[in-house]
Amino acid sequence: MTTAEDLAERVREGDLGLHELEQHADADVAAEARRVLLEAETEADLSTVGAYAFDAADADSNVENMIGAAQVPMGVVGPVRVEGGASSGEYYLPLATTEGALLASVNRGCAAIRRGGGATARVLKSAMTRAPVFRVADVGEASEVVSWVRANEGTLREAAEATTSHGELRGVTPYVVGDSVFLRFAYDTKDAMGMNMATIATQAACEVVEAETPASLVALSGNLCADKKPAAINAVEGRGRTVAADVVLSRDLVADVLKTTPEAIAEANTRKNLVGSAKAGALGFNAHAANVVVAAFLALGQDPAQVVEGSNAITTVDVRDGDLYASVTLASLEVGTVGGGTRLPTQSEALSVLGVRGGGDPPGSNADALAEVIAVGTLAGELSLLGALASSHLASAHEQLGR
Amino acid sequence: MTTAEDLAERVREGDLGLHELEQHADADVAAEARRVLLEAETEADLSTVGAYAFDAADADSNVENMIGAAQVPMGVVGPVRVEGGASSGEYYLPLATTEGALLASVNRGCAAIRRGGGATARVLKSAMTRAPVFRVADVGEASEVVSWVRANEGTLREAAEATTSHGELRGVTPYVVGDSVFLRFAYDTKDAMGMNMATIATQAACEVVEAETPASLVALSGNLCADKKPAAINAVEGRGRTVAADVVLSRDLVADVLKTTPEAIAEANTRKNLVGSAKAGALGFNAHAANVVVAAFLALGQDPAQVVEGSNAITTVDVRDGDLYASVTLASLEVGTVGGGTRLPTQSEALSVLGVRGGGDPPGSNADALAEVIAVGTLAGELSLLGALASSHLASAHEQLGR
Amino acid sequence: MTTAEDLAERVREGDLGLHELEQHADADVAAEARRVLLEAETEADLSTVGAYAFDAADADSNVENMIGAAQVPMGVVGPVRVEGGASSGEYYLPLATTEGALLASVNRGCAAIRRGGGATARVLKSAMTRAPVFRVADVGEASEVVSWVRANEGTLREAAEATTSHGELRGVTPYVVGDSVFLRFAYDTKDAMGMNMATIATQAACEVVEAETPASLVALSGNLCADKKPAAINAVEGRGRTVAADVVLSRDLVADVLKTTPEAIAEANTRKNLVGSAKAGALGFNAHAANVVVAAFLALGQDPAQVVEGSNAITTVDVRDGDLYASVTLASLEVGTVGGGTRLPTQSEALSVLGVRGGGDPPGSNADALAEVIAVGTLAGELSLLGALASSHLASAHEQLGR
Amino acid sequence: MTTAEDLAERVREGDLGLHELEQHADADVAAEARRVLLEAETEADLSTVGAYAFDAADADSNVENMIGAAQVPMGVVGPVRVEGGASSGEYYLPLATTEGALLASVNRGCAAIRRGGGATARVLKSAMTRAPVFRVADVGEASEVVSWVRANEGTLREAAEATTSHGELRGVTPYVVGDSVFLRFAYDTKDAMGMNMATIATQAACEVVEAETPASLVALSGNLCADKKPAAINAVEGRGRTVAADVVLSRDLVADVLKTTPEAIAEANTRKNLVGSAKAGALGFNAHAANVVVAAFLALGQDPAQVVEGSNAITTVDVRDGDLYASVTLASLEVGTVGGGTRLPTQSEALSVLGVRGGGDPPGSNADALAEVIAVGTLAGELSLLGALASSHLASAHEQLGR
Repeated sequence: MTTAEDLAERVREGDLGLHELEQHADADVAAEARRVLLEAETEADLSTVGAYAFDAADADSNVENMIGAAQVPMGVVGPVRVEGGASSGEYYLPLATTEGALLASVNRGCAAIRRGGGATARVLKSAMTRAPVFRVADVGEASEVVSWVRANEGTLREAAEATTSHGELRGVTPYVVGDSVFLRFAYDTKDAMGMNMATIATQAACEVVEAETPASLVALSGNLCADKKPAAINAVEGRGRTVAADVVLSRDLVADVLKTTPEAIAEANTRKNLVGSAKAGALGFNAHAANVVVAAFLALGQDPAQVVEGSNAITTVDVRDGDLYASVTLASLEVGTVGGGTRLPTQSEALSVLGVRGGGDPPGSNADALAEVIAVGTLAGELSLLGALASSHLASAHEQLGR
Repeated sequence: MTTAEDLAERVREGDLGLHELEQHADADVAAEARRVLLEAETEADLSTVGAYAFDAADADSNVENMIGAAQVPMGVVGPVRVEGGASSGEYYLPLATTEGALLASVNRGCAAIRRGGGATARVLKSAMTRAPVFRVADVGEASEVVSWVRANEGTLREAAEATTSHGELRGVTPYVVGDSVFLRFAYDTKDAMGMNMATIATQAACEVVEAETPASLVALSGNLCADKKPAAINAVEGRGRTVAADVVLSRDLVADVLKTTPEAIAEANTRKNLVGSAKAGALGFNAHAANVVVAAFLALGQDPAQVVEGSNAITTVDVRDGDLYASVTLASLEVGTVGGGTRLPTQSEALSVLGVRGGGDPPGSNADALAEVIAVGTLAGELSLLGALASSHLASAHEQLGR
Repeated sequence: MTTAEDLAERVREGDLGLHELEQHADADVAAEARRVLLEAETEADLSTVGAYAFDAADADSNVENMIGAAQVPMGVVGPVRVEGGASSGEYYLPLATTEGALLASVNRGCAAIRRGGGATARVLKSAMTRAPVFRVADVGEASEVVSWVRANEGTLREAAEATTSHGELRGVTPYVVGDSVFLRFAYDTKDAMGMNMATIATQAACEVVEAETPASLVALSGNLCADKKPAAINAVEGRGRTVAADVVLSRDLVADVLKTTPEAIAEANTRKNLVGSAKAGALGFNAHAANVVVAAFLALGQDPAQVVEGSNAITTVDVRDGDLYASVTLASLEVGTVGGGTRLPTQSEALSVLGVRGGGDPPGSNADALAEVIAVGTLAGELSLLGALASSHLASAHEQLGR
Repeated sequence: MTTAEDLAERVREGDLGLHELEQHADADVAAEARRVLLEAETEADLSTVGAYAFDAADADSNVENMIGAAQVPMGVVGPVRVEGGASSGEYYLPLATTEGALLASVNRGCAAIRRGGGATARVLKSAMTRAPVFRVADVGEASEVVSWVRANEGTLREAAEATTSHGELRGVTPYVVGDSVFLRFAYDTKDAMGMNMATIATQAACEVVEAETPASLVALSGNLCADKKPAAINAVEGRGRTVAADVVLSRDLVADVLKTTPEAIAEANTRKNLVGSAKAGALGFNAHAANVVVAAFLALGQDPAQVVEGSNAITTVDVRDGDLYASVTLASLEVGTVGGGTRLPTQSEALSVLGVRGGGDPPGSNADALAEVIAVGTLAGELSLLGALASSHLASAHEQLGR
């Protein structure tokens, strides 16, 4: 039996590549061998990294060159009542983070929502997109390709859907810049986040485009998708789920839980989240949506790189008859309950806390519910931070008066 | 001794709040109690979530309502040679992810860089920012406050720096929108990411502003910071570290490792990362910087919510005398090697793989080095994905010719 | 007969409002009266302002409180050959400006295009938009309104089209932010720029929405139109005409006319128009499109405030087999050949220089042709300025060598 | 004596270029010759274009290939009281436009402001910028160039200021993207808009940079200026004048003049100008600032292409104790009272209506005053349009109730 030490030695001697160890030992030994090597070549002790609670082989489709696992503290907030389109009832939301006070803050927001009777949530739009870029001869040819695409969406759908048992092509939107033609394919990917499904289906459609038109594929992603970049096209048109949540909190509840007034929260929201973000040239008009979204993504097996666009949110606050109305709208929350990181043990367990593990009935409903609960969690986070900002202002105002 | 079951029962009966358990048991038992409760109230089995490899009490400053930990597979890429301002030599870069093929891809980029003689990297700017928003009576008063701030930066520095033993106030920039005045404080926070340090110091300075001018603080953060939102102000002026990395790869090396040509990679970069992102209204002009940044952040104890602005990157590719020049410039990479998530066991171990755990000598040099290595890792990821996009185009071109 | 002096005196005495003069005298006398008043109350001599070459009454629908006219020098560039979808042949393009050297520069670009055999141009998309904003109770109601709109586009079309003999409703796209619902109506307005037509038609449709759904209209324009603001929604989806033009110039021609090389122009375009604009957080990736667009708008009776979005352009330059390929794509060029300022004498005369005065056959073709020629003029301007920037660099390089 | 017909004939025969006519006749005859030519070659009658009220020779530095002038109807609004930093008293503001109802609307806003006691205005920042782009070898060299620039700003100032008798270099800010270094030079250009002054001074400074560092100039403008493109760098940091204006209108005054309530205007502003613009991915958070800015620019001899960034504005509205507070902040209003189009007759006359023709005392004060009055005019336009949107909503609400 090959030991980790043997393997490490062979890598050190140049006999084996770091990525080839799984060919010579099982996944756990391979990971151990890499730790041995790194411990020898650096100052590191990797014992905790090596103390993961699953079979390395089970993470095979999630990582290469594995050495172990990062352990990120996970907590829970809630319960919070959600009145959604796909979700309904009380939810505990698991969040993984290293930022102290985050869960306490979100939990305070959940308490306010719970005491206010719960939040409303809706998925307003749903589509995973992939946008290849093609080269054409000139703008005349670009115009022809655009016309062909508009007239032959059915042909493209057939090619795209032949690659998937679940996905459906919703539409193809062409965009032209000089001699570049971008085609943005939008899919219903049900309970899968769907990036891979969309990529494979789009590749098949691209072959048709290349065969039937003069366009030449330059890159299967042309950044109008747009994946993992903050982009107005997602903020405007959505990607993954466009989901919104809102709540009305009575004046007394705001005073009791958030220690401030609806007016003070509305003012903080307007000056900070609307005017401040406007002045900053921001693509996000919220207080800290990314904190909640990424903590939920980490706990629940979503792709944390997609927090870049997944946290694109506009938070609004109004005073309504003396009470507080607050909403958060997430334009492009890419989530799934099957595939990707959702299969890993801690992530899968967390999904089952929400009751949305695996495919939903009807298909897509689990991912919709997940989106709605994350939106409500984000709303809770917004309420709590805005409350804290507004009340510390009030506190400081009081102190000033006391002087 | 109170058992987890007892505690869970008391929460269920409304006798205790979910967040109060640490007052009645040690942190591990409290976490267990929450798992017991969740397992009873939902379908979840949380055994793997509970199998974390550290004392729950050690995560006390990183999470509340702890139930365990999310375990994210961690691998390693490299070694890659970096010729930086604060870093020098060969580095293995730990990355935690659930996205299959990511590490294999980045590792291929690292191999190309290594065979090309290594990458150059530089921290070009460094400052953590916090920007409170104040209310004034009108634009006349706004003008007076701005004048006062410009004339009294020394006073503000004194107040701010009195709160910190390490931080230094670099400057205060005022911005006005009607009756809102925003003051963007920029700090040198050495090896700390510095968000907390900057917040505390700014709070002290705000008290001076309120005492000496008619301005009233509305929110300690006015979103011109801008934290965890994609914002042009960060993309233009930077936040945390502004860091760049580049490399020249010979034509043969591009063919051998990336299976394509410098021209094809340059074309893919221009049409996708420059023109495509321009058309998308994007704040990121890169292929997938967020993938590498967030994987490094997770492995190394950084704040993953800051990938939102931390992944703001422009990738450029040129053909130089037949060879390939590629660069990536990250405008606002917020990193630290002390505080926050860096103290946690797996994260701390990963930092020691890079040799940048804890405070550097001189102060700030460890965080600078961390920024430089992440930039090189991001460059590796860009090269590999652009190569894959370009070569699959070539491949498909070849197939077409073969038909 | 009332004289201008009498009227001015009555205004001075508070007897008449400045805007009421047309009720007491003809339009020319009323304008004269205002000049008399202003000359008395300020240091101004307004004799040239009063020397306009048309009947004041003819400008009645274009201005109120008229005192005369601003006279902006008008020149002409060309002829330039255009191979367009709606335009074909050689065009002289009138431009009005006060910026010295602009016409000389654009004319040089036209010369290059003419000698290169002409430019290709295409209108790729055409729609005038108006997007009212409605208030709803919560996100649940927002979702219902969105569903209703998607299911009842025919009803909205009927209401909208009842207000216009020419316009056609192309589609309605709903967007939601919390308790605000925005409906973006897109119209084919033929040869009219169409803002008024779209507004009136949308108002009628809004009445249906208010009658049939719980939504309440807050503002007939909700800034997702987006009129006269730089907005990604226009840059991505277009407004008015999306139009592109391109040309290939031989290496010799570039040397002869632009005094530089294709490589130098390509480098200037990449570093300035793509990378520089990216770093600037810009919504425009061009050298000076606005200069040409606004000069054409002024000469040709278009709305110069719409240069804000009308100049949204991406310029691309590539070296193709040693020659130069250049393109410019204008995302949202709002133009018309009927209505608005096109009826005024100098503007109408300028339109007839292009042969596009009044309604086209088929309807819309004159406005399409106008868009194509402006795109080619913009391309000429880009080529000339990029050439100047690149060649002055070369010149300075030569000087340096000579030292 | 050469006649226009002779010259036109010689152009037609290819004997003379269209731009060479001024070498053979005076400017008026040259312009006439071009009209003769165009009338022969197209369907146009250019008699009104030829009826300009100035010597063509006087427009020599403003246009080439002159054929005459565009005549744009000019009206006047006001008087409006301004309490500014450089302006004080009652002003009539000339505006040139072809958009019917614009002046009536702005005038209504002026009436509201006048009856409200006048508006406050302040120039908050002033600097004209030019940002060349240089090529360097790699990011290491970029870092060196940045360091050199930071250490040698005095040397650059000396070189820059040697080219101008009025301008002062305020500072140079370096930005790096890979192997491109951008240096943003900011100047105090007093009463000149200053683009030319800044360009010439920057060119001199660039020669120093090239002589003293390894950087090579690629383009004298690298789009971080950013001139005539909507760019966040201007919206954040300003260009030309950053100027704000505000006013408080009593509840009764809002009812009387604007026919609505402070609450209705505030709601329209929030949903349209803040939330709507946020959702649109806009760089402008206002109702129609561009309408007023471009109409003022045309009347007053400013560069209308600069309305692109000159109209970058954030409008805020709040209800204060039942009354209305409204502000508009223009980030980058480039204006001047000397040079450029200000010398032309109608434009010069219009400037004297405001009393700001030519250089101010102290230098810069005339341009400051011009900026302040335009800001107040813009505020008037915002108030009136928001009032109209809000009141038509109220009207429609009343109608609904009546049914």
